[in-house]
Amino acid sequence: MTDQHETQAHAPVEDSLRLVVDSLSRHKLVEELVHKQDMPRHELVESLVHKQNLVDLSKKLDGLHPADVAYILEALPMEDRLLVWDLVKAERDGEILLEVSDAVRESLIDAMDNRELVAAAAGLDTDEIADLAPDLPKDVVQELMKSLDQAKRAQVESSLSYDEESVGALMDYDFVTIRADVTLEVALRYLRFLGELPPHTDKLFVVEREGKLIGTLPLKRMLVHDPEAHVAAVMSEDPVLFHPSDEAADASQAFERYDLVTAPVVDAQNRLVGRLTVDVVLDFIRAESEQDLLQAAGLREDEDLFTTVWKAAKNRWLWLGINLCTALFASRVVGAFEGSIEKLAALAALMPIVAGMGGNSGSQTLTLVVRGLALNLISRDNARRLVLKELGIALLNGVVWGGIMGLVTFMLYGNPALAMVMSAAMLLNLLVSSMAGFYAPILITRLGHDPAFGAHVLLTFITDSMGFLIFLGLATMVLL
Amino acid sequence: MTDQHETQAHAPVEDSLRLVVDSLSRHKLVEELVHKQDMPRHELVESLVHKQNLVDLSKKLDGLHPADVAYILEALPMEDRLLVWDLVKAERDGEILLEVSDAVRESLIDAMDNRELVAAAAGLDTDEIADLAPDLPKDVVQELMKSLDQAKRAQVESSLSYDEESVGALMDYDFVTIRADVTLEVALRYLRFLGELPPHTDKLFVVEREGKLIGTLPLKRMLVHDPEAHVAAVMSEDPVLFHPSDEAADASQAFERYDLVTAPVVDAQNRLVGRLTVDVVLDFIRAESEQDLLQAAGLREDEDLFTTVWKAAKNRWLWLGINLCTALFASRVVGAFEGSIEKLAALAALMPIVAGMGGNSGSQTLTLVVRGLALNLISRDNARRLVLKELGIALLNGVVWGGIMGLVTFMLYGNPALAMVMSAAMLLNLLVSSMAGFYAPILITRLGHDPAFGAHVLLTFITDSMGFLIFLGLATMVLL
Repeated sequence: MTDQHETQAHAPVEDSLRLVVDSLSRHKLVEELVHKQDMPRHELVESLVHKQNLVDLSKKLDGLHPADVAYILEALPMEDRLLVWDLVKAERDGEILLEVSDAVRESLIDAMDNRELVAAAAGLDTDEIADLAPDLPKDVVQELMKSLDQAKRAQVESSLSYDEESVGALMDYDFVTIRADVTLEVALRYLRFLGELPPHTDKLFVVEREGKLIGTLPLKRMLVHDPEAHVAAVMSEDPVLFHPSDEAADASQAFERYDLVTAPVVDAQNRLVGRLTVDVVLDFIRAESEQDLLQAAGLREDEDLFTTVWKAAKNRWLWLGINLCTALFASRVVGAFEGSIEKLAALAALMPIVAGMGGNSGSQTLTLVVRGLALNLISRDNARRLVLKELGIALLNGVVWGGIMGLVTFMLYGNPALAMVMSAAMLLNLLVSSMAGFYAPILITRLGHDPAFGAHVLLTFITDSMGFLIFLGLATMVLL
Repeated sequence: MTDQHETQAHAPVEDSLRLVVDSLSRHKLVEELVHKQDMPRHELVESLVHKQNLVDLSKKLDGLHPADVAYILEALPMEDRLLVWDLVKAERDGEILLEVSDAVRESLIDAMDNRELVAAAAGLDTDEIADLAPDLPKDVVQELMKSLDQAKRAQVESSLSYDEESVGALMDYDFVTIRADVTLEVALRYLRFLGELPPHTDKLFVVEREGKLIGTLPLKRMLVHDPEAHVAAVMSEDPVLFHPSDEAADASQAFERYDLVTAPVVDAQNRLVGRLTVDVVLDFIRAESEQDLLQAAGLREDEDLFTTVWKAAKNRWLWLGINLCTALFASRVVGAFEGSIEKLAALAALMPIVAGMGGNSGSQTLTLVVRGLALNLISRDNARRLVLKELGIALLNGVVWGGIMGLVTFMLYGNPALAMVMSAAMLLNLLVSSMAGFYAPILITRLGHDPAFGAHVLLTFITDSMGFLIFLGLATMVLL
């Protein structure tokens, strides 16, 4: 992808969306008229108006940055989306497919035939083809691979071979290399000979024979140093670099820490194999944080806002099923105390408070631990100190909120023993939930999973079941 | 801040942390020995060892990037943190204070006297001083302002005048301008004369008299075009630009969409007033997504992992208090049906399932709506369609999960009427919760608040209270 659109006017993209929606509704109005009236003359006129309208819309779309077209496609219901997609010039299909979300991409690909798909992907860079490949039909991928020369095919295959969350899957092959023993003057002449530099180029990669990386040459330095100087004298000899197998999350933290724009990727023999750029890192960070939010609500994947009810429901079922199981378990805990509840129905009214406060307080601990784990701030060295701190907070909260709820219970029911059971149960369940909030994400991380997904279910399971058990158990022992 | 550390070796920062922790524990061991043994000779030797150890540690810290020192400070308990902070060279204090989280920054600033603080901040750029200023004591800020020349003071004041979430608060004043009527050759000579370019410079800003922006000149283009060409012929005439009052969230979306590295900020008269860079945007995006996660768990601000129990508890109380109120309300709903529960204690065991499934399903809707609102994908045009889709999903889920729970209830209690009440209540509460999940974030956004904070409380309040009301109400009517 070139940067031809980089310099585009910055009219709010929401305005473009409104314009498209207006055109589409005019278009539909015309269509309705055409279908209702059977007068040939009118038909002719309206069909012309209609065509003109779509031609205007198509022109408007041509002028938009691919990311803006992608935004419009995301915001349109299926029928309108496919109409707009038809109006987009075929040669832009590839770059737009790269910009839309996975869910919308699927809907667009479904609407294209194999020939169109091959044509759309053929115009892309190899790292971009690798990004699209998992979403394309198998025969399209095969045909695409056949159309590439050997070097490019190897690049696509290499990109596809890396884990999705690794640097290898994010890197591109779009970099400029230079030798260390030439002068800046020669380097500048070489750049002028190239005529165009890859997007985001802020530095050249300095390599020796066999492609081993020995340094980087920031463009800024080329500009301010004497042209007679040698590259070797001006380059950075110890740049931040990555390996294809490095985790993308670590690389993105390094981009943030060291304020990088691009960085070289090298293999185990220090041979340059690719390049990581800040725009890809930015997209990765955004995608990760979105995924965390979606996963926390048990959405297995990003949902197209206008997907079918059936498809959306399937996306949400696993989560609801798991939660039903944990709720059933908690329900059986309550079931074991039905005798006590029959005698004192107030227990049924109070028990959700014990469970709920445990869940809320535990999720505060959990959120801080998940964040600490993501930033590598939690280690064996400091874990004990953190546990003690969280237990301290839970104790303080237990005394404060347990005390308040004890008072409230006494005022509501006039039963001092019940009030004391309530206070004690709140305190105990807050202690339990601080431990659950601390260890649930650590356990799930140790098992090799992302704590954003399962930790909350595990926490709720514990705080609900234990909350009911502690409160009803104490009540049964003390009151009945 | 210069980019002198940009080219640093990339040894994992976790290794540095381990090294610091080891040094510190050796240091403590020596201190213990020194304090326990009262032999002068030993003391002398050990005090030397001890000093040597700290000198080594100090050297190690000198070699680290400020962001890495910041990471180490974050990961250390208070006592060790302040020891390490003392070992950091005074002239680096400012850049490190910029890198640490708000919570840790507070702890470091507390440990410094006014003279040290003024010295630390004096070495920073004006936009960085403005970032620190809100956390500094008032008299330190006053003294700092006095030490600045008029132009710089105006920059700090201007940065401080903008809303924290606006482009004005994020921009810097570190850019290179050029006239349109000179040749690239002259421009290149000018850059060489400057000797150093601001960090992240990927383009020069082309201005005419009175500082009006007329275009940008990417360094890449300077390098590949004929030096005889005029800036006017090579520049981009219609760059993406921002105004200081633009929302930072919108600007960061533009950086993502258009893959920007830097962008000019202009006032209403199109005069260049600042520059936005991708590293600041990256930090903003990360901070926002962290804040969303923290707020979702009711943490009012970022918590230092090693803060005091008292301080952490205060940070969490507002949330727990609000949740206690909503839980109390739900409890009173149950209380109204205590008569029914006394007759049929199974109701107490089943009611948390109805409430819980409503909460889980509603939070799925809520998460998608919050995301759609953040991306501006939800409008009046498509809201009705989205509501219908969510209602459709709730209906489908209600039939499926309500059906399953009806069966389970029948198997557990052998009471067909109770099973039917359970199914109906699940279905109804899922419908209610899909509406609550849809409208809660929209309502809170309309009221001018961030939906990440209050929407979930509102949702839980509705799904719990309505879940209990629907289930217990139906049961009382049908069964008793």
